[in-house]
Amino acid sequence: MVPKGFQAAGIACGIKGTTGAKDLALIYSEAPAQVAGLFTRNRVKAAPVLATRQRVRRGVCRALIANSGNANACTGRSGRQDAETMARLVGTALHIPPHHVLVASTGVIGRPLPMPRIEEGITAVTTRLSSQGFSDAAHAIMTTDTRPKIVSEQVRLAGDPITLLGIAKGAGMIRPQLATMLAFIMTDARADAAVLSAVLHEGVGTTFHRITIDGDTSTNDMLLMMANGEASAKALRLRGKDFSRFLEAATAVMDQLARAIIKDGEGMTKVVEICVRGAKDRTMAERLAFRVAHSPLVKTALFGQDPNWGRIMAAMGAAGVAFDPQKVSIFFGDVMAVARGVAASGASQEQMRAVLQREEVKVTIDLHAGAAHTTVLTNDLTYDYVKINASYTT
Amino acid sequence: MVPKGFQAAGIACGIKGTTGAKDLALIYSEAPAQVAGLFTRNRVKAAPVLATRQRVRRGVCRALIANSGNANACTGRSGRQDAETMARLVGTALHIPPHHVLVASTGVIGRPLPMPRIEEGITAVTTRLSSQGFSDAAHAIMTTDTRPKIVSEQVRLAGDPITLLGIAKGAGMIRPQLATMLAFIMTDARADAAVLSAVLHEGVGTTFHRITIDGDTSTNDMLLMMANGEASAKALRLRGKDFSRFLEAATAVMDQLARAIIKDGEGMTKVVEICVRGAKDRTMAERLAFRVAHSPLVKTALFGQDPNWGRIMAAMGAAGVAFDPQKVSIFFGDVMAVARGVAASGASQEQMRAVLQREEVKVTIDLHAGAAHTTVLTNDLTYDYVKINASYTT
Repeated sequence: MVPKGFQAAGIACGIKGTTGAKDLALIYSEAPAQVAGLFTRNRVKAAPVLATRQRVRRGVCRALIANSGNANACTGRSGRQDAETMARLVGTALHIPPHHVLVASTGVIGRPLPMPRIEEGITAVTTRLSSQGFSDAAHAIMTTDTRPKIVSEQVRLAGDPITLLGIAKGAGMIRPQLATMLAFIMTDARADAAVLSAVLHEGVGTTFHRITIDGDTSTNDMLLMMANGEASAKALRLRGKDFSRFLEAATAVMDQLARAIIKDGEGMTKVVEICVRGAKDRTMAERLAFRVAHSPLVKTALFGQDPNWGRIMAAMGAAGVAFDPQKVSIFFGDVMAVARGVAASGASQEQMRAVLQREEVKVTIDLHAGAAHTTVLTNDLTYDYVKINASYTT
Repeated sequence: MVPKGFQAAGIACGIKGTTGAKDLALIYSEAPAQVAGLFTRNRVKAAPVLATRQRVRRGVCRALIANSGNANACTGRSGRQDAETMARLVGTALHIPPHHVLVASTGVIGRPLPMPRIEEGITAVTTRLSSQGFSDAAHAIMTTDTRPKIVSEQVRLAGDPITLLGIAKGAGMIRPQLATMLAFIMTDARADAAVLSAVLHEGVGTTFHRITIDGDTSTNDMLLMMANGEASAKALRLRGKDFSRFLEAATAVMDQLARAIIKDGEGMTKVVEICVRGAKDRTMAERLAFRVAHSPLVKTALFGQDPNWGRIMAAMGAAGVAFDPQKVSIFFGDVMAVARGVAASGASQEQMRAVLQREEVKVTIDLHAGAAHTTVLTNDLTYDYVKINASYTT
């Protein structure tokens, strides 16, 4: 389902060479849309992040142009000019002000954008807009992704049926801090930028902030939400039942996109849920969960379907967090591997191995020290992760 | 060269199964030796770490028994008893008090030691002691290491020729914090535990603290230094020329052992030196250097001989350190890749690639923000790292 008044297109303009792979996406709202966004916390920010962040502060947009194959990061002043040029060209073609055009890029860092190709591409892509174009747009923002990520939800607000549609890309360099690689959510709800911003901040806490592939944070991360009000006369307010319902639907979109990113993690064979519970506080649970999720030794053991829980204990011990190793329980799925810090009596290697053979594995760590808990989604570390990343630019 | 009054042996007692690989090492000092040690900061500490730390506090030892193939970590009270039993058996065989016998273990976490085999092994190994046994001992502490690590230095103190001999093991789970996996240094210098401790603390700063393979810190890390005074009548003091000379020789031993560990990093094809300079302070330089050294994306690019410096910038940006990306220079070897945060003009892909084809690669990052600097040694991330660690316990 596509929200009313939104159109999109995705084409190949040659940024990715002569492969024919789509690399330029355009999203357009027929009416001015309110917009909110969250951006990478990486200190090194790509030119489009700076350009778009500035625009999002004003809270209104009409279009978003996004390319893959080149991140336009570490490209200095000329990179910043290129991002502005992209917005200007789209604005001219669609007869909208350039400051209503958001810009996003993803791909290799440090190379100038091939502007002649992008210029031709923008001319072409602006003529292809349609309400059927979102799948093409989702394809056009992919880099090492093996499949597009596109989800939608519907919800009834004050009697009006409202649609949310989200697309995202991301498969590596995933440790979102306030956003993931690229994720764009469009809705025909009526909501101002402040409401959208509240929804994003609330929603990421249990979705994009809970996934990690390799602990690397991108220079280009961006999560945007646009609302054009085309399906609803009544504006959403920051409280009440309608807000709750909208938040729930938006969080469902974010959750599905975040999970889709993890399910398409570079080279992965497994989705791994690291659940830390019984912690004194949330911060403690998070630090431990991410430390375990980032340990190359834990991740390779999971790839090897090896119930080597000692590596989980060792990773926890190095997290700089005060916990009592002698109280720790660890479960693979429902099988208890560790009780009070040592091998659980009766824990069967065969049972644990059977759990680890699944494509979705849950690892539960109980600290028996309190009531706080958290869950982090990640992948295993495989030959193919190394292969993909040893040869990405060339 | 072997320091006077020290003997060693290394045998296979079956901890590693029926492979015939050596797995039990014994080091013995004919006279009581002063001893100092540094131990893992991992919150999860193996039983032998606890047993040995307690003994080292008293400052005197006569022997060290070390096994590979089993870490005796996360083994609870019975693991602690096993470590004590190992010391007691050695003490009985060599007619020395059990509290003068240090214990170390390395290998798989969470499994009980096969005590019947170790008991037989101790009976055998105590009869094999000789001044020629250090190579066997170095073999017997190996796990995924492909070669033993053994170095020696000589230095003249107050007219007496003094020998230092060090052995170490370690190839994965290497991010030492106050120590590396296992490293034992024996010397016939005369020095009390306080002097040895000062030497260790001073020496690790530029050696074991500057290496990282995968950012994982072991539960069993231990660095010990024993001095039996057999070659020197005069005791070393904490100051003066002799102390400086001894410190220099001891640091040389630690440096060679640390480099040997990195040269034998699991699955590695390269030794990579990450040098951060021009930092405001040392802490800033270290955080950035370790962040870059731990980035899976940087490490896989190095494996792929790919001068993808954007990943270095992205890793730095995510280090939580305040620096100005627009002032950063990056060099591969002597080839400037980045100037003022963007691709250096005239940087040749071929030249950069040629640097990355070498077995030893230096990456220099200049922040142009101050005079502090640091260097970290690490490896690339390869198929073989994944292979080794996907199948280690089984």
